[in-house]
Amino acid sequence: MNKIYNPDRKEWKAILKRPTQTVADIEGTVSDIFREVAKNGDAVLKKYTAEFDGVSLENFLVSKDEIEAAVKWVPNELKEAILLAKSNIEKFHKAQKSERITVETAPGVYCWQEKRPIEKIGLYIPGGTAPLFSTILMLAVPANIAGCNEIVLCSPPNKEKKIHPAILYAARLCGVTQIFKVGGIQAIAGMTFGTESIPRVYKIFGPGNQFVTVAKQLATKYGVAIDMPAGPSELLVVADDTANPAFVAADLLSQAEHGVDSQVILVSTSKSIIASVEREVEKQIQKLPRRAIAEKSVANSKLIYVGNDRTALDLINEYGPEHFIICSAAEDFYVDNIRNAGSVFIGNYTPESAGDYASGTNHTLPTNGYAKQYSGVNLDSFMKSMTFQKISADGIREIGAAIESMAEAEGLQAHKNAVTLRLKSLEKY
Amino acid sequence: MNKIYNPDRKEWKAILKRPTQTVADIEGTVSDIFREVAKNGDAVLKKYTAEFDGVSLENFLVSKDEIEAAVKWVPNELKEAILLAKSNIEKFHKAQKSERITVETAPGVYCWQEKRPIEKIGLYIPGGTAPLFSTILMLAVPANIAGCNEIVLCSPPNKEKKIHPAILYAARLCGVTQIFKVGGIQAIAGMTFGTESIPRVYKIFGPGNQFVTVAKQLATKYGVAIDMPAGPSELLVVADDTANPAFVAADLLSQAEHGVDSQVILVSTSKSIIASVEREVEKQIQKLPRRAIAEKSVANSKLIYVGNDRTALDLINEYGPEHFIICSAAEDFYVDNIRNAGSVFIGNYTPESAGDYASGTNHTLPTNGYAKQYSGVNLDSFMKSMTFQKISADGIREIGAAIESMAEAEGLQAHKNAVTLRLKSLEKY
Repeated sequence: MNKIYNPDRKEWKAILKRPTQTVADIEGTVSDIFREVAKNGDAVLKKYTAEFDGVSLENFLVSKDEIEAAVKWVPNELKEAILLAKSNIEKFHKAQKSERITVETAPGVYCWQEKRPIEKIGLYIPGGTAPLFSTILMLAVPANIAGCNEIVLCSPPNKEKKIHPAILYAARLCGVTQIFKVGGIQAIAGMTFGTESIPRVYKIFGPGNQFVTVAKQLATKYGVAIDMPAGPSELLVVADDTANPAFVAADLLSQAEHGVDSQVILVSTSKSIIASVEREVEKQIQKLPRRAIAEKSVANSKLIYVGNDRTALDLINEYGPEHFIICSAAEDFYVDNIRNAGSVFIGNYTPESAGDYASGTNHTLPTNGYAKQYSGVNLDSFMKSMTFQKISADGIREIGAAIESMAEAEGLQAHKNAVTLRLKSLEKY
Repeated sequence: MNKIYNPDRKEWKAILKRPTQTVADIEGTVSDIFREVAKNGDAVLKKYTAEFDGVSLENFLVSKDEIEAAVKWVPNELKEAILLAKSNIEKFHKAQKSERITVETAPGVYCWQEKRPIEKIGLYIPGGTAPLFSTILMLAVPANIAGCNEIVLCSPPNKEKKIHPAILYAARLCGVTQIFKVGGIQAIAGMTFGTESIPRVYKIFGPGNQFVTVAKQLATKYGVAIDMPAGPSELLVVADDTANPAFVAADLLSQAEHGVDSQVILVSTSKSIIASVEREVEKQIQKLPRRAIAEKSVANSKLIYVGNDRTALDLINEYGPEHFIICSAAEDFYVDNIRNAGSVFIGNYTPESAGDYASGTNHTLPTNGYAKQYSGVNLDSFMKSMTFQKISADGIREIGAAIESMAEAEGLQAHKNAVTLRLKSLEKY
């Protein structure tokens, strides 16, 4: 682990630099597959499923029988855990519902804002050894609360032409309307253009590897929205002597096991905590099944000592961490003044993994410093706000002259006319 | 105008097709300028300001003296109009402030969501013959309510090396912190990377030509967010025999004068209204200063007759208009059931130009069918939502086992450990 003591502000940018991904070289591949899928639909999905996933499928749609079998397969203990998590996620996201906002801005001028659901959304869930069913809860639960009426899920088939039963169980539980065995670039292209099997959607959510990330970026060029730009997961902990070094180390390692490019940072006003956390990391890492991955990201991790909480806060706001754990006596100071973070975990009994699974907050969060300008996924991610206005005859009398004057000054005579005609018609009364 | 009677649903897609913009050929130019600005900052801004705007500037920042002079120049009547509009926009966007949402999702598990401002934003205002000061109101007013502390504005200089006084007046009135005389691709690149003069921002808002649109798209690759993807402006009116044909024609023309690629559509259940609106358009268009532009977009416009309101609604939802005017006895039916529209204007005294300037709603709205998945600009566009959680010892006892079970099933042992360690430490008590 790299220890840095009292870095100069000028060095912050370099110290906090994230590992850069180069995507330019895969853009060509992604574009080519998009063009093919747009043109030949399912046939192209079949071709690339054979090529990338190594299986030949007749049918992409997961059948009711497959889902029933999956539901039976999932152990009861896991089902109960998922149900608890779902209940907490539901409570937190239901509370985010907002009422219509109505204002009479001037006499007779009624304006209101209302949120309505995005009708068709697509979820992407990666394959691989571990089934990321928790992400389905994080996306399909709020989509259902929002009222999206089509919730499509794509995930790559394994060598047995199947999707992991825990994914199917979670998808059914959370009201996914159709599940397709399609992965990678071809899945994102399928949801972007629509094919014989897969419906076109308006917005695509979910994690994925570099290819999926670039495919989602490309989808935005074809009129599809995405949840947010993606990057490697990251955690920043601020800790002082009130923190438990074993807990902090465990949290840093839970982040480090995600991937070799995961970002792990400890900021502290205590040199002794830095030393004891480092010892704990070295101890705990020995027993991890994903030790090889964790060791690589830990090697790039940073333990940063700063003189006081104000400096720590400035540095953290400059970084804008996806996950931010506060184990400090100055807890309130950090909570009140953190400006750029995805999700904040407060106190010694609030591990990041609580938010990953079951506290109720969403785990789809802005990485790569995007916390400076993007929200994490929340209920509003599945809706769009629309405005309405209704103006009475008195209302247009009230604001008509101002509109005429401004339209004239902007050189838009027809805009002015639309008001002038109405005002003239009212002169008769 | 193209009249279409009772089109088959299969034809809707073709009928509602928007004019396609081809941007691929300018992407190269935009990329090149971005690379240059990233490398050589202000020197490159100077070079392209000379090349594209035809003026050589020593200094991009608008001085206090220039702003004072502009304030004096703006006629009082226009100032009063702008103040009225600002007041309405303020009222409507202030009402959009949301409170912290707090939920105890399980005993001892406290979760909350809070919105905090995006610290640094950039506004782009195009140059040209007409000064679009109204857009400054629509962007800077909510940015100030949100609490953004840096609001940078870029706009191209005219041949006299100046920015139109109405723009400077509106910018000062609405709390813009710095105004720069830089336009086009180089302005967007400047706000994306930062230069010696122009600060780097986190999110860029505002309209522009094809070059600016492509530059904003490219900015997102460098970690900057944008308000929304852009396209030509559009208006769809649904009208029945309760509508006033002269008003409807005036509204269609106010849209048509924007540009030759503006979209204008009338949907009606009344053949007589279609006929009388067409006559009115032909009459009113004669007197317009921007007649040449309006005639071109009117030539591509569509008057669509459908058998009933249900069919009309389905067609409108399929199109997803930026602006949607309802002049119909079935007003409530449309208001309740419209799912895809940017802003809705209801009744005979609610012209679109009211929302463009002074009703209080925002005029930066999703075009090109993006109303299906994007919100128009609103207070939340200048903020991001963050989540917080604080779990007590009892809280982690409550949800710890579920987290352990789910982390285990996803193959993430370190995630499980972070909980196990805490649960074990609590067994002692």
